[in-house]
This record gives sequence, structure tokens and C-alpha cells, in this order.
Amino acid sequence: MIYMDNAATSYPKPDVVIQAMTDYMKNIGANSGRSSHRLAIEAGHIIYETREAIAELFNISDPLRIIFCSNVTEALNLAMRGFLKPDDGVITSSIEHNSVMRPLRALEEEGVEVTVVNCSSQGFLEPREIQAAIKANTKLIVLNHASNVIGSILPVAEVGEIARQNDLLLLLDAAQTGGAYPIDVEAMNIDLLAFTGHKAMYGPQGTGGLYIREGVDLKPLKWGGTGSRSDEERQPDFLPDRYESGTLNIVGLAGLGAGVRFVLAEGEDNIRGKEKNLTQKLLDGLTNLKGVTVYGGLDIDRQVGLVSFNIDGLMPSEVGFQLDEEYEIMCRVGLHCAPAAHKTIGTFPTGTVRLSLSYFTTEEEIGKTIEAITKIASK
Amino acid sequence: MIYMDNAATSYPKPDVVIQAMTDYMKNIGANSGRSSHRLAIEAGHIIYETREAIAELFNISDPLRIIFCSNVTEALNLAMRGFLKPDDGVITSSIEHNSVMRPLRALEEEGVEVTVVNCSSQGFLEPREIQAAIKANTKLIVLNHASNVIGSILPVAEVGEIARQNDLLLLLDAAQTGGAYPIDVEAMNIDLLAFTGHKAMYGPQGTGGLYIREGVDLKPLKWGGTGSRSDEERQPDFLPDRYESGTLNIVGLAGLGAGVRFVLAEGEDNIRGKEKNLTQKLLDGLTNLKGVTVYGGLDIDRQVGLVSFNIDGLMPSEVGFQLDEEYEIMCRVGLHCAPAAHKTIGTFPTGTVRLSLSYFTTEEEIGKTIEAITKIASK
Repeated sequence: MIYMDNAATSYPKPDVVIQAMTDYMKNIGANSGRSSHRLAIEAGHIIYETREAIAELFNISDPLRIIFCSNVTEALNLAMRGFLKPDDGVITSSIEHNSVMRPLRALEEEGVEVTVVNCSSQGFLEPREIQAAIKANTKLIVLNHASNVIGSILPVAEVGEIARQNDLLLLLDAAQTGGAYPIDVEAMNIDLLAFTGHKAMYGPQGTGGLYIREGVDLKPLKWGGTGSRSDEERQPDFLPDRYESGTLNIVGLAGLGAGVRFVLAEGEDNIRGKEKNLTQKLLDGLTNLKGVTVYGGLDIDRQVGLVSFNIDGLMPSEVGFQLDEEYEIMCRVGLHCAPAAHKTIGTFPTGTVRLSLSYFTTEEEIGKTIEAITKIASK
Repeated sequence: MIYMDNAATSYPKPDVVIQAMTDYMKNIGANSGRSSHRLAIEAGHIIYETREAIAELFNISDPLRIIFCSNVTEALNLAMRGFLKPDDGVITSSIEHNSVMRPLRALEEEGVEVTVVNCSSQGFLEPREIQAAIKANTKLIVLNHASNVIGSILPVAEVGEIARQNDLLLLLDAAQTGGAYPIDVEAMNIDLLAFTGHKAMYGPQGTGGLYIREGVDLKPLKWGGTGSRSDEERQPDFLPDRYESGTLNIVGLAGLGAGVRFVLAEGEDNIRGKEKNLTQKLLDGLTNLKGVTVYGGLDIDRQVGLVSFNIDGLMPSEVGFQLDEEYEIMCRVGLHCAPAAHKTIGTFPTGTVRLSLSYFTTEEEIGKTIEAITKIASK
């Protein structure tokens, strides 16, 4: 079995991740921040250590400004709905996931003005197009760091500089990059960083979060018990409690902490280097195949470890079915929850076949995948 | 070590829960509803089986009307913020958790009228008080099924009947009862049932959900990718997708499914019977101790498996510290995120010491706990 669906969720996870989760379930179990007995304190340590590891990964100076969410979608909703008010303007790109576009379209109905800046058909964004789209009411720029459809990397640092100069906030959707590609909230001027735990950060599903720069205030998405200021029916105004109501997914955060520490130990440069090599091999193998169209810029320095393609005369679902049934290769086909991106690259409404790899993918698996696609294309 | 903090989160979990989570992490791993390869389909089955088990537990006819959330707090926020509009009236009790009161106080600032009906100092609610509080603008009644502070059980079926007669919705917070005390959404006329997965349903933290009766429409709490209608930037209007944006906590739901099936196999009556016996023993042991005040009605038929008490001359935190340090007994002290409940029973602002048990608590543990408290009280 060859798993090439890591952009949906990474698999396998490092053993340490499963071990950390099992240890927590078997030996700790308790809630953090509520009770004050020894197990509760141990649970609190686990959560804080996970915050610290993530802070190190993204160069965040205060770990308490990381808010844990159930996934990146929740983090993006908290950021956008918590910040934007009617008549505010927001700029985004034409290759965003529906985790950005659906909340924005809902906000549009409430009076927020949404401006979509076009990317090239290779999925690239010109920073000057962002500059040109800024209006008097613009408050926020929202971008994904890399497209989940074709893997193109967007010029975040340049856009961050534009945001700073124009007194706007930059919200980055790091779903496809966190753990796999360097992110520095200071150097890139990122005010709000939404990340998912279960992709290249190697944690389990049910984890993710939002970094909120000091000075940025958001309306909460939910209110409730926090284990703090329990004498008050008013939500606490300090972080992370203001935005973390209810019991956290502590077993998930135990796993996520182990996952991020795995990434830090292996080294992000090393991980990125390996994934670049594998992606290059995949591109080399597919771009020369007759009847196969590979999308994107084909420039490995501007692409994360995912490749979208189509085979002439075959629907993506048909290719995916053959890859699964005949070759035991798991991929994802269709629109990948990102209709705007497929319109941008010209593959709407049928979509593409997407292969996405991880640090655990081997050269042999890449070879077998190319072989399988060669056979399907030549039929 | 004696764990008496099950009302915060149950511990230990049944072995099958940890096994289901480990199996998922090691052997399946994939996302459901996004890709269509075999692992993704298997992940989808796990989620559906969890929905089915919960539907059976609560007598819900359509499992797809169960929305998975990260905890009961999120479920309560989705229900209350999704349903109530400015100028609407909502009735609740004076013994609610901050997971109900904080969202309601935030809604109050947005123009919702909140009426709090007093409970007795033993934590009981008279249904006629609810009837008397209904006004022309009343739309919703929100109640916890059992108090997280003193365990008193509220007359849900009677209030459900009042809600039905007055064309109001009933939202039940089942955090302290789901799995430990029978709930039937039909017989009790519950329109919205918010539950947590990690207490008496024996799943892991990070799980919970909301049942939404057919015909009830809520505004989503978050928008995003659902793996469905991926050609549209508009949120799908069918359930559960309308409210389940982003990747679900599948490993958590694998565990929750195993937990609920454990409850169904052991039998809720059997579980409730055992917990009643243990609670009675605890009450018997504590109520006659000199210097110890036990709160609540002391009527085992109207109480779940948790007991709150204080010792004359000692702060709850001091008692909790001694129980942990000298006797290795884990409990929870203070206000339990429920200031209104402590005002109702007369223990605000210092709170109480709370002991809470589970199906795995033994008679021996109850005996040792009584012994420890006897020693502390007699010092």
C-alpha cells in the first residue's frame, strides 16, 4: 500500500506520536486547568510543552498566544469572524481552500467586502496585485501559504511587508506548509497564523490552532468554562483562556507535541530537502509522460510536496479508482474543497488527481507511483 | 491512587477505547469524506458507526442529525448562538455551568433577554417556575440535566412537556448524564441535545456533539470545507455537513464509538445501578461525619454519581491538597466553572470539594475515601 494523500492527513505518524497518546490515555487521563491534583497538573504540562514546541517551530515569542482549535478551519473562522466587521474590506487570493472562501462568503452576506486577487494559472501570486487591491476600508489580507491543489508557494514575506506598510493584518493559512516549509511569524510579518496539527506537523486529527499577535483582539468564537476566573460569568480577557473554552483535546495535543518535537529533531531543512527531492522525481517522471498534464509551475523551489495531474480521456475519479484498485496507491481526486483554485488553473469542475507525500515517503514508492500512472496513461 | 474526578473527565477508559484509537492511528490514519480510496472509506465507516452508537444511546432516529464538536461547550455555543437572535428570550436555571452562562451573558450583550429561574438550595428545579417565566418573546429553554456541582437531576421530561405546549425549544446540556443516566430525546421532548464524549460516554477528550431535531435550523458556528458540494463556495445546507467544517477528530471519534458501545453492552441501567450504590455509600459515610457538610438533596434517585462537601474550618483547596498529598485521592475543589450554582447552594465564592465516580470506581475506593475524609475532618 502506497499512501500519497498526505495533504489530506499525514500517514503514517511517527511512533512517538502514537506512544505519547497511548501514554496519556493509560497513565494520565485527567483534565488540565480545572482540578489541581497531580494528574491534572501533569496534563497541564503536556499542553504547555506542546505550545512551546509550536512556538519554537514558528518563532513565536509567547507560547500563550497560541490558541488550540479542533482544526485549521476553526482557527480560520476564529480569525476572520473574530476580526472582520460589516463594511470592512478583506483581500484574498483566487487559489484559496473553502476553509477560507466559505467563511468569507458568509461574512460577505453580513456586509464584509471581499476582494479576490487573481493568481496565475500556475498558482502564483504577484505581490503588487495585492498592493493594487488595497482600498480605504481594507483591514485584512488572507492567504494560504501553499495551494492544496497544486502546491504553489505564495510570497508571504513580501505580502507581509505590504500589510505592515499599509497597517493591515496578515492572516496566513499554513495548512499545507506548517512543519514542511519554514514559517517565521516575525520575519514574515504574520499577525494571525492558522495551522493544522495532523498534516506536516505529524499530530493526530482534531488538533490545530491560531497564533494571535500581541495587540490583536478578536471576538471569541465560543464562550464557556476555562478553569479560570470561575467566579465570573464573563469570559476572561487573557490568552489563551479567552478563546479556549471547554475541555481541550489533551490526548490529541499530547500527540501533536510529540509530532512537532519530531519535526524539530529531524530538522525542517532536512525534511524540506527530502520532500523537494521526492517531489522533483515525481515531476520528472510525470511531466514527460504522453497524455499526462501536470499542473503548476514545475519549479521545485516554489512548490511543496504535492503534485496535481490529469490523464487525457480519463476522469480524475477513474484514475483514482484504478490507482487504488490495481496498484494500492491512495490519492485524492476531484476539487479538493477548493473550487476557486481549480477555476484559476483551468480544471473546474472535474478537478485533478492529487499525489501528496510526506517525510516518510520513499523513493521506491515514488518510482512505483510513476510506473502505475505510466501504465494507466498508456492504456 | 484513587481517581475521584470523573465529572471532569472519566479515567480510566475501557481498554477497547484505547485499542480503537491505536488501531486507527496505526492501521487507517486517513481522512473521511475527502478522498475516496479504501482507507478514507474505512475512516468514514468509523465515524458513521460512532454516530449510530450515539443515536442508539439517546433514541435519535437519524444518526446524521448528530453534529460532532470538539466538546460540549462548542455544542452549546452552536445551539445557543445558532438559534437565538436579538430580542429573543431564553430561560435557564440558576445552577448552570459557565458553558451555558458565559455564552448567554455574551448573547445578552447582543440583545438577547436571559431569564434565570432559581433552583432550591438543594439544586432542584420546580417545572412550574419555568412555566411562570415564559414571556411572549421566549424561544428557548436551556437546562443542564444534572448539576456538575452537586449532582442534582433536573426534571427534563416535565420541562420538555412545557416546552412542547408553549412551542419553545428545549436545549439539554447532558455533560454529567450522557452515558450515566437514561436520555431519550423523544420521550423527553429534547430538541437540542449537547453531549460530551469524554465523561460517562468513556471516549477521549476532544469529542462531543449536538443532536439537532428535524425542522430546527441553526446558523453555523464555522464555515469551511466539508468534502461535499466542493464546486460551491456556499456552505452545504444538509446535515451533518452544514455544521461539520474541516477535518473531524477521527481518532477521537474512533475512541468515542468504542466508549459508547461499551456503555450499550454493559447496559445503562446496570451502570446507573452500580453508580447509585457507590454514591449512596459515599453519602452514608460523609453525612454523619462531625464537621462535614454535604450539599444537595441526599436523595440518590435524584442525584448522579458526584458529591460535594466541605469541612468546617478548612478551605476546599486545603482539603483537596491533603487528599492528593497524603492519600493519593484525586478530586476537584473550588467553583467548578459554575459560580451561579455555588450562589444557589450557598457556597460562593470559596466553593466545595467534589468527589465524582464512574463505573470503574470500586467499593474499596469509596471506603478509603471516606476514611481519608474522616481523618482530615477529625484533625
